[in-house]
Amino acid sequence: MSDHRTAALAYARENRQRFIDDLKEYVAIPSVSTDPEYRGEIEHAAAWTAERLRSAGVDNVQVMPTKGAPVVYGGLLKAGPEAKTVLIYGHYDVQPAEPLDKWSSAPFKPEIRNDNLYGRGATDMKGQVTATINAIEAILKTGELPVNVKFMIEGEEEIGSPNLESFIASHKELLTCDLFLNPDTGMLAPDLPTITYALRGLAYFEIRLRGPQSDLHSGVFGGVVHNPAQVLCELIAGMHDTDGRVTLPGFYNRVRELDAEERRELARLPLTEADYLAQTGAPVLWSGEKGYTPVERAGARPTLEVHGILSGFTGSGAKTVLPAAAMAKISTRLVPDQDPAEVYQQLLAYMEANAPKTVQWDVEVVTSGSAASIIDRHSAGVEALSAAMEAVWGKRPVFKREGGSVPVVTQMQQLLGIEAVNTGFSLQDDNMHGPDEKLRLPVWSKGTEALIHFFFNYR
Amino acid sequence: MSDHRTAALAYARENRQRFIDDLKEYVAIPSVSTDPEYRGEIEHAAAWTAERLRSAGVDNVQVMPTKGAPVVYGGLLKAGPEAKTVLIYGHYDVQPAEPLDKWSSAPFKPEIRNDNLYGRGATDMKGQVTATINAIEAILKTGELPVNVKFMIEGEEEIGSPNLESFIASHKELLTCDLFLNPDTGMLAPDLPTITYALRGLAYFEIRLRGPQSDLHSGVFGGVVHNPAQVLCELIAGMHDTDGRVTLPGFYNRVRELDAEERRELARLPLTEADYLAQTGAPVLWSGEKGYTPVERAGARPTLEVHGILSGFTGSGAKTVLPAAAMAKISTRLVPDQDPAEVYQQLLAYMEANAPKTVQWDVEVVTSGSAASIIDRHSAGVEALSAAMEAVWGKRPVFKREGGSVPVVTQMQQLLGIEAVNTGFSLQDDNMHGPDEKLRLPVWSKGTEALIHFFFNYR
Repeated sequence: MSDHRTAALAYARENRQRFIDDLKEYVAIPSVSTDPEYRGEIEHAAAWTAERLRSAGVDNVQVMPTKGAPVVYGGLLKAGPEAKTVLIYGHYDVQPAEPLDKWSSAPFKPEIRNDNLYGRGATDMKGQVTATINAIEAILKTGELPVNVKFMIEGEEEIGSPNLESFIASHKELLTCDLFLNPDTGMLAPDLPTITYALRGLAYFEIRLRGPQSDLHSGVFGGVVHNPAQVLCELIAGMHDTDGRVTLPGFYNRVRELDAEERRELARLPLTEADYLAQTGAPVLWSGEKGYTPVERAGARPTLEVHGILSGFTGSGAKTVLPAAAMAKISTRLVPDQDPAEVYQQLLAYMEANAPKTVQWDVEVVTSGSAASIIDRHSAGVEALSAAMEAVWGKRPVFKREGGSVPVVTQMQQLLGIEAVNTGFSLQDDNMHGPDEKLRLPVWSKGTEALIHFFFNYR
Repeated sequence: MSDHRTAALAYARENRQRFIDDLKEYVAIPSVSTDPEYRGEIEHAAAWTAERLRSAGVDNVQVMPTKGAPVVYGGLLKAGPEAKTVLIYGHYDVQPAEPLDKWSSAPFKPEIRNDNLYGRGATDMKGQVTATINAIEAILKTGELPVNVKFMIEGEEEIGSPNLESFIASHKELLTCDLFLNPDTGMLAPDLPTITYALRGLAYFEIRLRGPQSDLHSGVFGGVVHNPAQVLCELIAGMHDTDGRVTLPGFYNRVRELDAEERRELARLPLTEADYLAQTGAPVLWSGEKGYTPVERAGARPTLEVHGILSGFTGSGAKTVLPAAAMAKISTRLVPDQDPAEVYQQLLAYMEANAPKTVQWDVEVVTSGSAASIIDRHSAGVEALSAAMEAVWGKRPVFKREGGSVPVVTQMQQLLGIEAVNTGFSLQDDNMHGPDEKLRLPVWSKGTEALIHFFFNYR
């Protein structure tokens, strides 16, 4: 191990208590983005983040305005144009703390119990943000940073990052990088370093059917007028075949198949059927798409879900209406190399082929949609992070594909063509978004060390 | 024609203007049952009805209290125990008149224009009630009534007759009869006397599915947890086969098939596909159960309808929830000799056979249900009415099966074992329940004459 790396790791260990004190100060700021009353605290947290970057030794720190909360930017480009550049993402805003009476200690008065730091935002994601800053500080205070780093710390993640896309679009040059590091995904267990190398994309639609001009008497017209609620059910039922596959025409044409090596890697994930049952309370798991394991189905295969359906009379009692209309919200989760615009065409083709003439229909594209994100597990950035984690935990990380999407990852992919490596040191029992949110401090310290290794490894 | 019959018909013609004046007085009473503010007018209309029965010569007229609006009863049993007894149903309450600005004349200031009497309740059903009373008066003032008649005129039909069932149940003796005459159904055209000899029954259910313990993130669990909304759609889609037949096991076992003669009779009804399309605004009619015409499907064959479905997120925008639960309200319209309790068992059997283990479910029986009603078209009462109508209009009436159910008909069937003959002199363009409700006076006068014939014919 290089002297510098050893020194940086030693620095992080020696400064652990100060790092903890810093974090407590950060968590004490109630930077709740969902409530305009906390606007001052949002500004406060942005200023705190900027100041912390500066004190860590990051140059060119700016609190950059948007239409909403500012983005804190910092750049440290001394490694020169030949070296790699990592863009580190984070957010300084937090979820509301309510219900307050469910907390064991005040959410904005951070308190340590049993090596856990309790407080709103401790794990999501002020702890993750400070881990990256602390790692950079440890390297800078003991020598030169071998890579270029940029920070982009936003203040609106918990409200869906409404202004981040335009921020990225108007600062492409500033944000240019080789690797996008998103430390906002977590670990499957305290002893299981986890790299999320792929996220599914999304295409979201509302289907609306209209039959008769108004609700009809089901006694008078039942059997003669086609019931739009029944038609909707038939259309939705037909969207999966008996093998659990989605029937939209051409839906699987562009799906990148899993190879044997990736399937072996995914099989290492400690996510059993029992885990899924315990997490969801479902009576039995769904068999889903035939030929794939639950982990593969939830992360590496495309799916189609119904988010909502509504038609007719749904109050209490008996109203014998034959409804005039019916609607459903559905979405497809996409994997590489599916294209959300193509999926829209596939849905239209399905509707044209299957919707009966007895109803009129239209399909609304509810969100602009996003393609899936995937980074090569064997690329330099992922290998560097994997080796870094193995150095700290003594075992190779597991490689996970996440079933959901992360807007900022999609935006970086779409606007800069950069794929993300997603990681982080939050745990599944950290009560993210709930009462008694906590950060497991020993894991956090290991995470800081892993990040130090990563910045030395990546080239 | 007997002298008495001729005299009675002449009496009705001579008293036509007084009958119209009476009706205008009746319609002027705003006996709106849906609004407690009109409670005094309900009492007023009940008293008016009782007084009119008395002045017509009906004995033993009583305004009988219920928990709600009173029932006006009258009995005239002088024809003796060997003669037939007809129980005549009616209601003196009316729908609200709103929206008032859509009326061409004030709803409770009846006005005659172009041989139509405009006013709320003119056709539904104060005109029908007075037609029966006027017919009885015409016979009584010119001789003896050849049958026994009883009147049961309620004041809560427009709010679903909540107290009529217990009234009938506690006055079975008083209401004993050979035939139940319900003049609250209408004519298909002014020159087309119509007898409705059958009504469909009803069995109404709510199906509830529960999957995971709470709404899930569709990205994380889509493909692994079975979506209750999707399961519901599959279950509902499976309730009809490709021939449009209901798939509940045993559903058709007790269905009384149509014979060739009845099908010929139903084919006489002037209800074309174009009529159904014009009435409903549906783009195209549903083919429904294979092998049956629209008229047969809507009246003489059982159907299953979805009244409402609800699951998950149905607001605006995109929420990527995998819903924890889904519900549907469905009902079956029943024909002789289906039994609503058996249909419930059939639905349970269907759910047991088809609901996957991935969801928990239950089925609630929302209303007590009713069997279908049918009266023999060749029975004495129907033949008497048919001949009466033919005598007035010069053509045989059409025989109709109505797809809906009428609570009082069901109650008379269940509590007294008496089937109903349904008729009346309202027209399809009478704007029942809407603004500018009207009664076509020439048709109403013909109806009165037909009723006179009927009371002479029936023995």
